[in-house]
Order: sequence, then C-alpha cells, then structure tokens
Amino acid sequence: MTKPPQPPQPHQGDGGGKPPLGVGMVGYAFMGAAHSQGWRTAGRVFDLPLSPVLAAVCGRDGDAVRAMAGRHGWAAAETDWHALITRDDVDLVDICTPGDSHAEIAIAALAAGKHVLCEKPLANTVEEAEAMVQAAAAARERGQLAMVGFNYRRVPATALARKMVAEGRLGALRHLRVTYLQDWLVDPEFPLTWRLRKEAAGSGALGDLGAHIVDLAQYLVGEPVAGVSALTETFVRERPLPAGASSGLADAGGGDGRGPVTVDDAALFTGRFASGVIASFEATRFATGRKNALRIELNGERGSLAFDLERLNELSYHDHTEPGAHAGFRRILVTEPDHPYLEAWWPPGHGLGYEHTFVHQARDLVHAIASGTAPEPSFADGLQVQRVLAAVEESAAKNSVYTPVLPVDPIGPVTPTAPTTPTTV
Amino acid sequence: MTKPPQPPQPHQGDGGGKPPLGVGMVGYAFMGAAHSQGWRTAGRVFDLPLSPVLAAVCGRDGDAVRAMAGRHGWAAAETDWHALITRDDVDLVDICTPGDSHAEIAIAALAAGKHVLCEKPLANTVEEAEAMVQAAAAARERGQLAMVGFNYRRVPATALARKMVAEGRLGALRHLRVTYLQDWLVDPEFPLTWRLRKEAAGSGALGDLGAHIVDLAQYLVGEPVAGVSALTETFVRERPLPAGASSGLADAGGGDGRGPVTVDDAALFTGRFASGVIASFEATRFATGRKNALRIELNGERGSLAFDLERLNELSYHDHTEPGAHAGFRRILVTEPDHPYLEAWWPPGHGLGYEHTFVHQARDLVHAIASGTAPEPSFADGLQVQRVLAAVEESAAKNSVYTPVLPVDPIGPVTPTAPTTPTTV
Amino acid sequence: MTKPPQPPQPHQGDGGGKPPLGVGMVGYAFMGAAHSQGWRTAGRVFDLPLSPVLAAVCGRDGDAVRAMAGRHGWAAAETDWHALITRDDVDLVDICTPGDSHAEIAIAALAAGKHVLCEKPLANTVEEAEAMVQAAAAARERGQLAMVGFNYRRVPATALARKMVAEGRLGALRHLRVTYLQDWLVDPEFPLTWRLRKEAAGSGALGDLGAHIVDLAQYLVGEPVAGVSALTETFVRERPLPAGASSGLADAGGGDGRGPVTVDDAALFTGRFASGVIASFEATRFATGRKNALRIELNGERGSLAFDLERLNELSYHDHTEPGAHAGFRRILVTEPDHPYLEAWWPPGHGLGYEHTFVHQARDLVHAIASGTAPEPSFADGLQVQRVLAAVEESAAKNSVYTPVLPVDPIGPVTPTAPTTPTTV
Amino acid sequence: MTKPPQPPQPHQGDGGGKPPLGVGMVGYAFMGAAHSQGWRTAGRVFDLPLSPVLAAVCGRDGDAVRAMAGRHGWAAAETDWHALITRDDVDLVDICTPGDSHAEIAIAALAAGKHVLCEKPLANTVEEAEAMVQAAAAARERGQLAMVGFNYRRVPATALARKMVAEGRLGALRHLRVTYLQDWLVDPEFPLTWRLRKEAAGSGALGDLGAHIVDLAQYLVGEPVAGVSALTETFVRERPLPAGASSGLADAGGGDGRGPVTVDDAALFTGRFASGVIASFEATRFATGRKNALRIELNGERGSLAFDLERLNELSYHDHTEPGAHAGFRRILVTEPDHPYLEAWWPPGHGLGYEHTFVHQARDLVHAIASGTAPEPSFADGLQVQRVLAAVEESAAKNSVYTPVLPVDPIGPVTPTAPTTPTTV
Repeated sequence: MTKPPQPPQPHQGDGGGKPPLGVGMVGYAFMGAAHSQGWRTAGRVFDLPLSPVLAAVCGRDGDAVRAMAGRHGWAAAETDWHALITRDDVDLVDICTPGDSHAEIAIAALAAGKHVLCEKPLANTVEEAEAMVQAAAAARERGQLAMVGFNYRRVPATALARKMVAEGRLGALRHLRVTYLQDWLVDPEFPLTWRLRKEAAGSGALGDLGAHIVDLAQYLVGEPVAGVSALTETFVRERPLPAGASSGLADAGGGDGRGPVTVDDAALFTGRFASGVIASFEATRFATGRKNALRIELNGERGSLAFDLERLNELSYHDHTEPGAHAGFRRILVTEPDHPYLEAWWPPGHGLGYEHTFVHQARDLVHAIASGTAPEPSFADGLQVQRVLAAVEESAAKNSVYTPVLPVDPIGPVTPTAPTTPTTV
Repeated sequence: MTKPPQPPQPHQGDGGGKPPLGVGMVGYAFMGAAHSQGWRTAGRVFDLPLSPVLAAVCGRDGDAVRAMAGRHGWAAAETDWHALITRDDVDLVDICTPGDSHAEIAIAALAAGKHVLCEKPLANTVEEAEAMVQAAAAARERGQLAMVGFNYRRVPATALARKMVAEGRLGALRHLRVTYLQDWLVDPEFPLTWRLRKEAAGSGALGDLGAHIVDLAQYLVGEPVAGVSALTETFVRERPLPAGASSGLADAGGGDGRGPVTVDDAALFTGRFASGVIASFEATRFATGRKNALRIELNGERGSLAFDLERLNELSYHDHTEPGAHAGFRRILVTEPDHPYLEAWWPPGHGLGYEHTFVHQARDLVHAIASGTAPEPSFADGLQVQRVLAAVEESAAKNSVYTPVLPVDPIGPVTPTAPTTPTTV
Repeated sequence: MTKPPQPPQPHQGDGGGKPPLGVGMVGYAFMGAAHSQGWRTAGRVFDLPLSPVLAAVCGRDGDAVRAMAGRHGWAAAETDWHALITRDDVDLVDICTPGDSHAEIAIAALAAGKHVLCEKPLANTVEEAEAMVQAAAAARERGQLAMVGFNYRRVPATALARKMVAEGRLGALRHLRVTYLQDWLVDPEFPLTWRLRKEAAGSGALGDLGAHIVDLAQYLVGEPVAGVSALTETFVRERPLPAGASSGLADAGGGDGRGPVTVDDAALFTGRFASGVIASFEATRFATGRKNALRIELNGERGSLAFDLERLNELSYHDHTEPGAHAGFRRILVTEPDHPYLEAWWPPGHGLGYEHTFVHQARDLVHAIASGTAPEPSFADGLQVQRVLAAVEESAAKNSVYTPVLPVDPIGPVTPTAPTTPTTV
Repeated sequence: MTKPPQPPQPHQGDGGGKPPLGVGMVGYAFMGAAHSQGWRTAGRVFDLPLSPVLAAVCGRDGDAVRAMAGRHGWAAAETDWHALITRDDVDLVDICTPGDSHAEIAIAALAAGKHVLCEKPLANTVEEAEAMVQAAAAARERGQLAMVGFNYRRVPATALARKMVAEGRLGALRHLRVTYLQDWLVDPEFPLTWRLRKEAAGSGALGDLGAHIVDLAQYLVGEPVAGVSALTETFVRERPLPAGASSGLADAGGGDGRGPVTVDDAALFTGRFASGVIASFEATRFATGRKNALRIELNGERGSLAFDLERLNELSYHDHTEPGAHAGFRRILVTEPDHPYLEAWWPPGHGLGYEHTFVHQARDLVHAIASGTAPEPSFADGLQVQRVLAAVEESAAKNSVYTPVLPVDPIGPVTPTAPTTPTTV
C-alpha cells in the first residue's frame, strides 16, 4: 500500500513458447470492452496454439483510448486506424466500430495483409458487404482469414443446438420461431440518438437485433433463408433531440426540439428455406420486461429445441422418439464437460455469462488462424444476412409481398467441407 | 350392491324455484362431452338465475346417442336435429357438430325460436357465417340470443388479461404474439382423416387452431384485425387412407392406398390492427412436444402480459411502471376470489382445468339469457374471425401480399355499450 | 323462460342397468362441495361398474343443508348423521366433517353396515385412529370397505410418480423433500378461528398440511416413516377473537379481545425410512406468495422426480441413465391417454384441476367396492400418518430428539398383495 | 504467425498511477483458476483504488505450478508457501488450498504482515478457526485485513436479496429453506478420493456444500444460527480405492480393493435463529440431475424471495403488500445497472456467470484494503459457520437432539457499525 507504483506487470507468460497472435482493435466502446475480455481470457482458459497479445487499440479520442488501453490491458493506443492496421505487431484487426465504417476498415486491413474479425452486422448495405466478401476471397488466396462476429453462435447452448440438428436428432425440420425482444426504447422521451436515424444506423431493431436472429436461424437450419414477407413499424415517430445533438441531428428537428425517428421500432417477418422449412421472426425494442430475450424454438419431425438468451446456460430439448408417457421438454444445463466449449470451464452447473461468447469467438478464430482453416461465420455468411435484411425492408415497403433472397455462393454452412460445428469443440 | 337398479335419480333439486333453461345439444363427441360437463356443473357451482336442464341430445346413431345421453345425464335422445330444435323442453340449442353443418342448424334453430350456442368456428365459409349473423340479428329482435363458443375467452387468466388491458394497465399496446402449437400430425403415417381434406374441414391448422388465436387476439386487443400477410405450408403431402375410409376418401387416393392432404399443416401470419398494434400468429400441428401450447404475449407501453394454455391457471405480468431494480415478469396464480369466475370455486392455489371453460361459458350464457343481454362472443365476432381466416388464405395464395380484412359492423368488442369483459364477473 | 319451474330432472340415466351405489355424505362445506363434484362426475366420465347416486347429505343446520342439497344435486337432506347412516338408500357414508367427529361417525357407519370414506386426517388422535382401524378390520370381515381421503394420491402426476418409483425407474431412493406452503395466516389480524385452537383442531399446519405430505411421502416411497426429528413454531401467538365468537373462544381471550393461538403455524421435520431413505418436511401457512405449494422432490440412484401442486398437470423427471450431454429434468405434461386416470379425459395438453382428484377418488372407490378389493389409502394408512404426526409433536416437545414411529401392521403399501398403484388405472 | 515468440506482454498498464496490490496465491487447482480470473479481471471492469498484480503463485509441484503461472498470468511461481508469504511483492496472500492447511498458512501470512483471503471453509475444525480469528484480530490492530471466501455472497442476486431484507421489504422474517444439491457422487463406483475420508476432508457434503448454505442463511437473515437439529447419512458406505491411491488410502481398504467412506453423503438439518426465524437445510451430493442447485427461499411477513444458483442471474420476489389479484412471484433479472455489482458490466439482460463472483470478491476486498475497512465475511463469520457445522455433527451423533451454537462475539453481520451489504455497491 505504501509502496510506489510498480512497473507494468506481464500480461502473460511466454505461453510455453507459443507463437503470439497480435491483435489490433478498432473501436473501444461496449463491443470493445467485450472483445477485450475475450482476447485477454481465451488463452488463460483454453489451450490455444497461438498466444493472443493485446497489441494496440484504436480510437479517435486520444485520451479516451489511452485510458481504455490502460484499463483493459492493451499495450499501445492509436488514434488513426490506418496506423493501427499497418503495425508490425498486429496480425489480426478486430473491428468494433459502428457498421458504416466496417467495409472501409476491413478492406484496408485485408489489403494490409491482416486477418480480420468484423463485428456484426457485416456492413450497413448489401453493396458494401459484397465488396467485403470479394476482398476476403482475394485475401484468402494469400492465406488471410476473415470472420464476422455473430457471437451468439458461440453460446454453448446454441452450439449444442446446431450440433444436435446436424446429428439428425430433430429429423426433418418443420419450422422455427426466433424472436429478439428488448425494451429500452419504450419511453417516448428517450432521445433521438443516431441509432434512430436511418442515414446513420441503416435500420432499427431489424439491423441491430434482426441480424442476430437471421444469422442464428441460418446457422441452426444449415441453409440460407430463401425469401421473406415482412411488416415493420415505428411506434414512436418523433422523439426529443438529444442534448448537445450534432448539427446533423439538430437539422432533423422542427423548431420544437423534436425530430422524426426514421428507422423501425419493430420488425415482424416470416420466411422460407429452400428445403421447405418455414420460420417466423420478430425483432423489437418495445417488449416491456424483456431485456435480452433472444428466443428460438426449432421443431423437427423427431424432436424440438428451445433456447432463451436470458437463460443462456440452458437448452430445452424434446425427444419425440421417446414413449409419450415419459416424454417432455427437458432442461439441459449446458455445463457438462462434453458440451461445446465446456471442456475448459468450471464443473457442471457453474454457468457462464454473456461475455464468454467473446472468449469462445477468440478461441475459435485463433484455432482457425493456426490451422489455416476458414472460420465461421464467414464474410459470405455476413453478406447472406445483409441480403435477408434487405429483402425484409423491400417486402415491408411492398405490402409484405414475398421477396426472394439471392443466395450467396457458396455460403459456408451448406458447403460440405466446411462443417458448421466448431471443429475444435 | 345387492339391491336392484334404482329409478333415475334427480339430476338437481328445483333450484329453489328457479326457472329452468332447457338445453338441447346437437353432436355428442369430444365437444359434446365437454359441453355436457359445462351444463351439468354450472348451476352446481355458480348461483345462476336460471337452472340449466339437460333436456335432450341429438346424434344420427341412435344407440350411440342414447348411450351418451345415459352417460352424461341427458333426459332424452334424438336422432334428427330437426326434431330436437322444435322440442318444447328445449330453450337453447347447443351446436357441437363439425363446422359444415353449423349454418344450417343454427339458422333453423333461431327460426324455431330458440337461443343458440354454436361451437367455433362459426362456419366453414364467410358466406355461411354472414347468413348466420343475419339470422341472429333477426332473432335478436324477437328476444333470442346467439353466441359462438370460443371457450378460451373463459379461462380465468385470459379474462383477467382482457380486464387488465381494458383497465389500461398495459397502456398503449404495441404488439402481440400468439401461437397455437400442437403435435398430433407429426407422424407421416397418421391417416388421411376428414380433417385433412379441404372439402370437409375447410382448412387445417388454420381453421382449427388459428380460429382460436385470432379470436383471442381480437378479444384482448379490443378491436378487429385490419389486415394480414400469410404463409401456409403442408409438410406431409400424402398420407395413408384411413382403414374403412368412406368412398369419398377412398376416391382421393391413387392405387397405392395413399391420398393427398389438401389442407395446411401450419400457418404463419402477421397482422395489423387499425390502432397501430401489430401481431404475429402461428398455428401448427407439427410442433413436437407441444400439446396445447396456445401462447400469448402482449406488450404495451406500461406493461406486458404472457399466457400459456398448458399452464392455464397462471398469467405472467410485467408492470413497467415499477422501478427497474425490482421489476420482472410475475406469475399471477389466477385462483384468487376476485379473479374472473373464481368467486365460486376453490381456495387460492387450487387450480382449474380445461373443462371449466365450458362451465364458465354456460354460466355467462345463462346470465345473458336471464337478463336479455347480448352475450359475447357474438355471431358477428365469429364472422369477423372467419373473415380474418379467409384473408389469411387469400394472402397465402397471393405471395403473402398484405390483405385487408373487411370489418364486421358492428363488432361486439368495439361497441361501447357491449363491454368486452363479462358483465357478471 | 316463461315456462313454470319444471319438476326435478333426472340426475342420470339408468347407467345401462348398472347397480347404483347410494352415497350419504356428512358435512357440506368446502370438502362437501368438492366431494359432491366427485360423486356427480365420476360416472359421467369413467365407465364404472356401479352408478353413484347422491342419496342424501347431512348437516346440523336444516335450511343450509337443504339449500346445499338442492344446489349440488343430493336427493335428500338430513340433519342428524345417525339418521343418515341408517338410510336404506345409503351404501356408503362419506365423512366430510372436521376431524374431531371422524371416529364416532365412521365407527357408527361401519357398525351400520356401510362402506366408509373418511376425509383426512383420519382422526385428531392416534387413539381414535386406532379404534377406527379396528372397526374397519371388523367390517372388512363382513365385506365392508373403508378408505381415507388423501386425495393428492389421485393427482395423475403423483400417481404417475408412484408408478415410476414402483417400476424402479429411480433405482434405490436416496432422499426426498416435501413441502406444503400456504400463506393465508400471514396477517396477524386474521382472527382466532377454531383452526387455531388445539382443543378443536388438534394441531395447526402440521395436521392440516403435514398430514398430506406425510401420506404422500409414504405412498411414494412405499414404506412408512420410521422416525422423525421436529421443530414447530407459532409466529403469531395472539390473535383477535373472531366476531361472534362462541363462548368457548371468547373464554380464550383476555379482556382485550385477543386470545392465544395454541397450535403451530409451521412445522419442520426430518425423517428416516427403514430402508435408509431420508426425508425433510415442511408445512407452513406463512410462506407469502405460496398458495398451495405442495412440492415433492424424490432423488434416486437412477433418476429424480419433482412435483408442484400449483402446476398439477406436470411431473418433472430426470433420467440419470441417459448420457449427460442430453440429460436434464424434463417436464412431462401428465395428460397423455396412458397416464393414470387420463384414459377418460381430454386430449393431450388439456389439463385437469384440483377437483378432479375427488372424481378419481370416487372412481377408485367404486371399483374397489364393486370388486371387493380393499381400497387405498386404508384406515391403517391413515393411522400411520397420525402416528407420524404424533411423533413430530413429541419430538418437537423434546428438543427435537429423534422419535421412532411405531409401524402399523400391516400397512397397505408394503403388502405385496396390495399394489400401491391403482389397479384399474 | 511466422514471427518468433515475443517477450511477455504487459498484463496491465500503470493503472493511471494507481498503487499496485500484489497478490500471492497458494494453491492452483479449481479454486486457483477461479481466483486467477477474479484478480485478473477485477481491475479491468471496475474502477478500483488499487491495481491488483498477480505477483506469485505457489504449489508443491514445480513444473505444474510454473505451467499454471504461465497459463494464468502469474509473474512468478513458488514451491514453498513460506517463501511466498514473505515476498516483498506480495501484499495479500490468497489461500486456495484444501481446508486442513488453511489455519497454518493464514496465521503465518498474517504474522508476516500480509492481508489474507482464505477460501471456505475457514478451517476443518472449530479450534483451528478460533486460532485464525485470534490471529486476524491481532493483525487487525496492525492494519491488516482478513476475509473468508464465501463467494456466493457476491452473486448479484444474493447481494440484492440481502439488500432487500435489510431494507425491510420482507418485513419480519418467518422461515427460510436452503438446499445445496449436487449429484456427482451417485455412482457407487466413483472412487474413494480424499474428499470421502474424514481425516482429510473433515466432513462430506456438510463441510463442502453445507458451509455455503449456512453462511448464506446467516448473511441473508443478518444473525447467526442459534441451534440445530441434524441427521446425516452415508448412502454408499464402501467404494473402490482410487487408482494409484496413496498408501494412506490403500491402508483404508480391505483386501478387495475397496475402502469405507467415512464422511456424510448428505446432511439434513433444521435450525433456529435467536429472533425466532426457523430454517431447514439440506446438503447432498446424491440429487441426480441437480448440478449446482443452491436454492434459497426466504419467507417474511411482507414478502418472499427465492433464488437458484443454477439460474444465478435471477431473483424471484413476491411483494405481499400488493393487491392479491395482481400479485405473484416475479422474476427479477438481476442485470440492471442499479443492481449490486452491475454498474460496471453489460447492458440489461446480458447475464454473468459463476466466475464473476470471484471478480466481485476481488473488487470488494481491494476496496476494503484501500479504505482500511474490515471486509466481510470476516474470519469471525467463518468461525461462526464452523460452529454451526460442528453443532450439526454433534446433533447428528446425539439422536438429532437440538444443539445450541455458541455465538462468535462479535459477529460481523450483527454489529451495527458493520453493514452487511457491501458498502461500495
């Protein structure tokens, strides 16, 4: 207590001589903090072939980014992402910025020879996403890898669900329901932040929450959505301008200090898969009392699965091949050592939390890089999601008419050589 | 034990001199048994102004209907419904036959001067339903009443939900999700019964299960569905002909003993209400492990409600006006004496079952008849449901395009003089 | 409506010539209403060998009992139970009075040649219960049967639980926890009714709620409790005298209009079974928010079961022989046709309620009488429960010291020739 | 990838000049890994007054402890705890060894001038625990602090529960039920490890699981257990000797390769608190299907709380002051920013896991050290738990007779100047 401040302590040992993997992260807000936890923890818990090093973090506000670097253990701070992506100690660029800058940074980072992890959604437009897929394909030729950060594939329970579907435990799938319910926009006096303006955010609940459930649906079913019919709604159409609003937002308002919300508050859509599976989707920020209710129910001929992100250590499973007298949805506590990702964690019943999805994401990406295997979800998977979201918006604009989605070719999960379950799990 | 069979015992006392209400029931299968329980029990538990008398039951098979009459306590049996509806001891005709005979019997019974209770769906077509509404309106002039049997309005928890919505506890409604999930058609070897042929059943899961959830949605929101966008699917398109199939069904098949399923196995649709509320609906018989999962979630600005028919004594309620630190969905056990219908039942926590919805239906209808008040749901409410189902089929046939629903004028729940909560509750 | 009151309608047909079973009931409050529902419904739903006839009901207040008879369909009313038990049209005496009159009425009814169904607890004292067992044994020689009304054995889920234990699905049992939690005494201003006075009620939560859980524990384990260690408590030791209190109660109070509570508010005890199974029990009327939470968890070497009376259509089952990766507690909806008692009820998922336990009780007793088989739970089973309760009180009075319970010989459930699962289920 | 291994990376920045707190940990198995996560993460997430430094870890096997140090980021490794506790860079000794070495290490570390965090149980015997309390009191005079690691006080939901009790939201407490159910010993072929031998482990489920629930009960009620009545059982009394068993264990066996289990498999006990609250406890390793079911229910005059460690982000709360018609147990998702410990974590609904209890423990201890405030639970709290466990064993050995527990004076939670809620929450 009375001793002077000590010099920085080592973040890690030499990993038994393991090669390092230098990570450079762009963006340092909510996702930046979550990714930091992931990178810092992955090598502590899992036995990785490479040792992740938190080399540098980048943000425009120098003081803030330096404080964040000190807090989260990044060795250096940058204020220009162009500088970050060319650093020698950076092998992988981790993009945690808002969606409108993803394409530019990702394409440049790939051009600079780095691996790339890009937060979801891959981009704000289909066009940007297509350019990113092209850039990733070109980089792949040079041995570089690219992944999009749909972290909810890395919840042990969803990974187990995918494994069970792939094993045929549900038989032919019939339908699924996926909802993502939050409630933080219910108050009509919540201000008109950039997230509620189309030019900045692209879309509302659809892009933010809908992207997750579309990706999960495609991941679980193992094929892309073939078409959708959609309805979107904005319940609170005018909100107070935020205090200290930028001129752009201030321009949005009339003289009364309020401005129009230009994105959806909720999106409902139904969809079809080529194999005949049908699905319903709901994304909303207006479900009072639901905080993070990403819920899935998947019904197949031989069984069903259900999941709720608010209880993320559990997977409900009904085995329809059992005698009816003893059958029923069972609550699997997904904390057994032979469950996905659980080999390295705590004893049964000692659950994980939200942030561990980022630890698992880091773990899987490190394995992919070390082995030169294309990681999933790929940029093509991210593009596929964008195409679905674009079709949702098109359908909603055209009286909900069924709108086909062009499949990305090839999409990861349906390529036989790219198993959809993590190979190292 | 050793005594000879005694003569029939009185079904009831004289009810303290209460006037009787003679009931004549057409149909004696599943619904007939359920209605019998309702009529036999209502006056035992509730203090009714009239004393229901199980006067006569009608079915085409004389032996079977006589056995049913003996079993369930009906004083007489008929084999021709024309005879039943003109009996002097019948004041009310309760129609429990399949949907294709509803219109004919109901219109004739009303013409014969009887009150009518008609099982849901009101009819198999909009045209039949319209004729029934007209007949009911004409009979209303003569003091006769008509009601359609959407019994799930009479679950105490759904009645409480409606009461809470009407009281404004949820504030402005935003959206609702309603599903009705069953699994009895999953086996592809389940035979091609009449329920799977369009000419007999009208539609599949849509008419059977969808009718219930459309009615409940309109009841809870308090206004009719304004339009829908729909997708339907038949997963198992050919099934074995049933043993002893009638020639009609036998004709349906090829030489291989199988025939085509001509109704939907599942229906997914979204909808809008005039007030801006949006909704998603799912009706299916292919959700393995779900036996009777009529689930509702209703999200409003000030709170939310959730219900599951598989746990029918419970209503989940989130009060969004409470401080966040102590808020959460609460499980109301709907067994308190001040809950709808509970004044006459058991102590708190001693739950009711499915059949009690029919007791409550009988109770409410007896009160309506005694007071001359139009009961709900009315035939107009039944017609409104039929129009929604027809719009669903039209939308599904037209690439899911949004299809408006013509409002029935006047629909009960939005008429100010006809409160949607049971007046006697 | 305009017709004059009709003469009493037949309660039932001739049951296809089935012999009647005349029931005479003593007591007509809460239990009387529940038993009436049971007797009136059993023959409507189940195919019984005898046809129950609601012959006469007895109570001291003539007007009240006549009104109850009219309401619930009893053919006659009596005001003296001595008259009731000697009626020619009464084959079975159903005793629904408070516990302090059980012994006298039951012994007299058996002496009068009647079968007897006696509500739980069998008696208020072990001595009374022993006399009843003796009377029942003597009557058994004459072909008369006697049963005690532990109706919770007739919840389909508890009957299924017993069946699964008996089949060995749980393997060697290790321990069970049984609680019965209610909250209706929490308010300290709730008056000092007779239930709170030892001279009238015998004991408090222990006799009322504890009796049920002791019987269920013995039923499920299949053997009697061998000994207990107990702790009881009275939280609110003085309460206001009830308005219009009888002189006896008024005497209980001081000059301040309050009097002492002389029974337990809660009882906690642990117990051992001869086979090595251990158990914990809790009965309380002070668990705020718990309305009827009779909860059981039974843990065996090969699996576990859990039940909650507040969700009485469900049984939770963990099959420990399954691979851990897919195992978990499953929610069995106990509404399948091959579940106990369900063969005659509604389709899967259409649940039953509290009152159906009395229908099932009537059904089982009618089968027993028709076949001359001793029904369960027997008076000996009732005595066994009383001995456990007495041991609980003794232990509580002696510093919780472990107090053995003398086994009744022979207790039904461990007699090989008397299967503990309903033979006709 | 192709670059050579880099030198160790900094574990943290300089913390903005924050003084470091050097941690030296003894033991490196399960608890060692969990504590490592806690120390490494606390300063990343929370704004701490001191910056924890993972200075050195100690274990007898040099290779293993060095590997662990590299894996988990400890700067140095020691093989002799005497060396560790005298290191200059160690301010705090964190004891994660089995219970039989706690007293010796803790007393020595305090004598060496270090703060001490000691895993639960504080010791294997009351005598050792008393010596530790004395040593801690003496060290307190010198400004050193000591804490025992009952980490489940640091689950946000349990901390919230304590806060709500302390605020009077439950009114006068009546009773609580606490169980800790696991199932890892069910298999009779599970080997006879040291945990199943009294000389090594002290007791079985009682010391391992029972210690947690006794501490939580005392924490939540806010006073010590006054006395207990107990029953313990060993279901599997002989087990195979473990492969490679030490001679000590081998000696335990007969010639058949099996040896006796000398600790309890399960412990059931009831207890009283001085204020009149009563409690029931169950600790077992034989509840098949229960993995980590530490369950609490606390019933008070004005409300109730319920918690299950298998769903650790939730707290159930019934507010009995609400009108009955809308009351019910609500599920509070304990993930709001104003919940204990949540100010620094993720948005609402993004749950935490088991390991975060160790992050919170580190956070609270760092605050205590920085401010010189005695942390809780204190060694006296740990001694109090030991005394309860000893009384349980004594009661179990004496026919379950009620056995008083001597209160430790002064015990933290009942000292008015030492609030039981974390002061910095």
